[in-house]
Amino acid sequence: MAKISESSVRRLSLYLRFLEEFEQRGTPTVSSGELATRGGTTSAQVRKDLSFFGSFGKRGLGYDVPGLAAKLRDILGLKRAYDVVLIGAGKLGGALTQYGGFRERGFNITVVYDRDPGRVGRRWNGLVVRDDSQLERDLTGSPAKIAILAIPETGAQEVTDRLVRCGVQAILNFANIQLSVPDSITVKNVNMALELEVLSYALRNQRLASE
Amino acid sequence: MAKISESSVRRLSLYLRFLEEFEQRGTPTVSSGELATRGGTTSAQVRKDLSFFGSFGKRGLGYDVPGLAAKLRDILGLKRAYDVVLIGAGKLGGALTQYGGFRERGFNITVVYDRDPGRVGRRWNGLVVRDDSQLERDLTGSPAKIAILAIPETGAQEVTDRLVRCGVQAILNFANIQLSVPDSITVKNVNMALELEVLSYALRNQRLASE
Repeated sequence: MAKISESSVRRLSLYLRFLEEFEQRGTPTVSSGELATRGGTTSAQVRKDLSFFGSFGKRGLGYDVPGLAAKLRDILGLKRAYDVVLIGAGKLGGALTQYGGFRERGFNITVVYDRDPGRVGRRWNGLVVRDDSQLERDLTGSPAKIAILAIPETGAQEVTDRLVRCGVQAILNFANIQLSVPDSITVKNVNMALELEVLSYALRNQRLASE
Repeated sequence: MAKISESSVRRLSLYLRFLEEFEQRGTPTVSSGELATRGGTTSAQVRKDLSFFGSFGKRGLGYDVPGLAAKLRDILGLKRAYDVVLIGAGKLGGALTQYGGFRERGFNITVVYDRDPGRVGRRWNGLVVRDDSQLERDLTGSPAKIAILAIPETGAQEVTDRLVRCGVQAILNFANIQLSVPDSITVKNVNMALELEVLSYALRNQRLASE
């Protein structure tokens, strides 16, 4: 099976959202055209994205909604729950912890670390903030494979190195820094200013191609 | 000039970050290879991204750092400041307001709205939370062209319609909903759960192509 791009994975996630809405409404089938409209793309792109994973749907009948939804949950690795380690008990960390969309998808923030003595030991969003220095003791042998970095750039690389040594394999990074990690580790950067820059570009040029 | 993809714009933003680091260190030139390494892409991709906007750099000499940085700031529409309207004075809104990266880039959150009577009128991160019902009165004729939606999905479409009527042209949307807007309006969705799904896909399949 060929590697697929991150854009395709993101579209698969979007298709799944729409399929789950159709499931809730009891709609049995959906066309590639409907998925395309909802996902802001073309029918051809929908068929291409799905074709990576085998043959779904019947010409003229569309896709079976529950079947395709189940398949996408499987492809996206969503049939299991993940324990997620949060680094940073600040405002952003708090917003992420309260964000219902994570739990809904099986991503459970089970532990939070900070290095600020004023935060460590306090009850916080149903968790108790743990001292950053306890990372190794806690995580060695733990099943947590995903970490979220919700801290400033200072210290982000150091904590990343430690997380990787503890067996974390995927990192969602909100720190404004390009982390270096071994090839086997996946890092996803979320940079809020960069999102606004994409908008600013669009305002300035009025010519952002959809993709 | 051809339309360029959002991925390209995002890479231009990244290149600019690195160029500004080089500027600070006083490095006069940079090669496409260095930009590529820092941006997680290839030299060919760097040259292709930059070629959309004219000819920069000299073969064997690399790119002039301050010159290319200035050009990218211009391309990205960052040579001016933007007033940004924030909808939602909750945790996420608070994290965004305190986020230094926005101000650094000239994005100033100048006003915040909420519809929760417990929040309206309170001092909040240096602003006073305004009643959502005052949107039209405040924004008509205002220069704010960018809005950030940091609210749950309920009500997100309604407030979007109102923002668009008030002349907002670009929206950064954190609500978990596909907004419908006129073609002339740019919407950028930030979906935290979707970011984690990209990681979950990578964990499950170990085969995310870089792009």
